[in-house]
Amino acid sequence: MALYITEAEVSSLLTMEIALASLDKVFRARSLGVVGNIPRGRLPLGPVGTGSYNLMGASWPNEGIVGHKSYAAGPGGASFHVMLYGASGEGLLAIIEANRMGQVRTGAASGIATRYMAREDASTVGVIGSGYQAETQLEAVAAVRDIKSAKVYSRTEERRNAYADRMSERLGIDVQPADSAAAAVGDSDVVITVTNAAEPVLTGEMLNMGTHINAAGGNSWTRCELDTHAVAMCDVVATDDIDQAKIECGELMRAADSGHFSWEKLVRLDRIVSGLRSGRDNPEQVTLFESQGVAFEDLAVCNTLLKMAKEQGIGTQLPG
Amino acid sequence: MALYITEAEVSSLLTMEIALASLDKVFRARSLGVVGNIPRGRLPLGPVGTGSYNLMGASWPNEGIVGHKSYAAGPGGASFHVMLYGASGEGLLAIIEANRMGQVRTGAASGIATRYMAREDASTVGVIGSGYQAETQLEAVAAVRDIKSAKVYSRTEERRNAYADRMSERLGIDVQPADSAAAAVGDSDVVITVTNAAEPVLTGEMLNMGTHINAAGGNSWTRCELDTHAVAMCDVVATDDIDQAKIECGELMRAADSGHFSWEKLVRLDRIVSGLRSGRDNPEQVTLFESQGVAFEDLAVCNTLLKMAKEQGIGTQLPG
Repeated sequence: MALYITEAEVSSLLTMEIALASLDKVFRARSLGVVGNIPRGRLPLGPVGTGSYNLMGASWPNEGIVGHKSYAAGPGGASFHVMLYGASGEGLLAIIEANRMGQVRTGAASGIATRYMAREDASTVGVIGSGYQAETQLEAVAAVRDIKSAKVYSRTEERRNAYADRMSERLGIDVQPADSAAAAVGDSDVVITVTNAAEPVLTGEMLNMGTHINAAGGNSWTRCELDTHAVAMCDVVATDDIDQAKIECGELMRAADSGHFSWEKLVRLDRIVSGLRSGRDNPEQVTLFESQGVAFEDLAVCNTLLKMAKEQGIGTQLPG
Repeated sequence: MALYITEAEVSSLLTMEIALASLDKVFRARSLGVVGNIPRGRLPLGPVGTGSYNLMGASWPNEGIVGHKSYAAGPGGASFHVMLYGASGEGLLAIIEANRMGQVRTGAASGIATRYMAREDASTVGVIGSGYQAETQLEAVAAVRDIKSAKVYSRTEERRNAYADRMSERLGIDVQPADSAAAAVGDSDVVITVTNAAEPVLTGEMLNMGTHINAAGGNSWTRCELDTHAVAMCDVVATDDIDQAKIECGELMRAADSGHFSWEKLVRLDRIVSGLRSGRDNPEQVTLFESQGVAFEDLAVCNTLLKMAKEQGIGTQLPG
C-alpha cells in the first residue's frame, strides 16, 4: 500500500505555492501545540568536514501522519528521504526522495517569514550566496511580496552572473550581479543570506532601517552569516525552532555570548504566523528570521505531496 | 541501486546465529569508539497509551554504513523499518522491514549478555512473559549455553502453556509452564523477564546466588520488572546504552532514587564483550543485563542482512 516517490516525480508535483500553503498550515497547527518534533540528531562520518548523517522527526496526528527525514552527506553526494507513517498504526504510507523537496521547503520557510515579518511594500531583494538553496529563497520571497528587482553577490563572479541570468528569466524580474555583499544589500527591503560562511557576510553597517533578513545558510554552530552588530540591530528575531537555534545558530550564539542578544528575545515563527505575536511593529524595524530547518516542515510538504501523488496516480507501489 | 527487503525475505535470511555474530562484532567496535548512536526519540500519537512514533539512528563508518530504525505503533498495529545509507555519500542502500529483525536482535542482545555474564555451566532458564519477544529471548540464551530445561510463567494459563509447547518443540529442550513467577524462577541459572509490567514481576526474594538476569521488557520509565531488592542484589549491572537507561529504565531509576543503586555502577555491555571488564568475578555473583534496544544493534544485523540479500539476489530494486 505504501508509495515510493522519486525526485523526478516530486519535481513534477511540487510548486512554491504548494510548499507555502503547506507550511502556513503547519505553523498554525504548531502554534496550537498539536504538532510534535524530534530535533535533528547528527553523526559525523569520517574525519571532520567529510560527511555527516542527519535524522529528524515530526508528528501531526490531526492530519493522520508522522514521519522523519534522514540524509547522509559525504564526498559522494547527499541523499535525502522522507518516510511517512499513519498516525494510528496504519503502517508505512510513503517514502519520498527529498533533495528537491528540501530545497523548496527551505525557501518556503523564508517565504512564510517574509510574508509575516517584511514590510508590506517590500520590492527589492539582496541575496548573498548563489548556490542550490539560493534559488528557492528568492523565488519564495518573490511569491509573497511584489518584488521588482534583486541583486546577488557570491564570491565567484561566474556563479553570481549565472544566478542573476537564471533567476531573471525564471521569475521575470530584474536580477543583477553585485561585486560585493554591501553592494548586493544596498537599500534592499529584504536581504537573504544563504552561504556556508564561517565568518560574517552581512554586517550591521550594511543594514538599513526597515529591512527584513532571512538567514538561511548552513545550520551548524561553526557557521556564522551575520556579525554581532547586525544581530543587535534587529528588533524582532524569529526562528522555526528555538531549541535547535540554541545549539546550532552560530551568529545568535556569538551575540548571546557577548551580551548583545538575549535568548528570551527569540520568537517562534509559528507564534507570528498564528497572530499571537506581531512580525514587526512599524516599517522602520529591522527583522530577522533564522531558518533552522525543522522536521515538521518536511512532514507538512510531504503530506501534501502524498495526497497529490495518490490523486494523480503517481509513484511506485512498494512490495510487502 | 537500493533494495527493498520485506518481512518474508528477512525471515528467510535471518537466524539467531547470524544476529549473535553481528551483535558480537558491533559491540566490540562500539567499545573502540568507532560506532555512533543517536538515542531513541519518541513522539506520542493521540491520547496516552494509544500509540507512539520512535526514531533512532547509528553509524558504523568502518563498515561503510549509517542508518536508522523508525516505527509507528498504534491501535492498527506496529510497523518497523530500517533504512541504510552508505557512509561516504553513496546514497540509500536499503530499506528493510524490521518487525522480525527487531524481535531477533532483541533476543540476540540478551544472548550476548548471557554469553559474557552468565555462569559457564548455566543449564536452566526461568522465563517471565510469553509474548512475541519471549520466544527469541529463550532461543538466544539456548544458543549460547547448554540449556537443558526452562520454565515459563505469564498471567494467562493458555498462553504460557502454548509457549511451553511451542518452545519445547522448536528448541528441543524441556519447557514447562509454571503457575507463578516464583515457580518459574525456582533455582534457574538464567532468568528472563520480558513483560510490559508496571509493577515488579521479579523480586529479590525469588533470586538465587549465581543467577544471571536478562531484563528485556518494555523500555519506558513507567515499566518496572524487578523490585529494588532484586536490583540491589546484583553484583554486576550492564546495559547496551547508559544514556537511555538513565531516562527509560524504570527499575534502575526507582532503585537509584531510593539509594539502593548508583548509576556509577552501571557498565556498558560492550566493555564486557571486548574484555575491558569482566561479566562476573565468580559463580556466586548475581548479574543483570538491562536491555534498552539501541540503533547500532539494528544497524549491525541489517548490515549483515543486506550483504546476504545481495549475494543471494533477494529483495526488490527501488525506483529512482
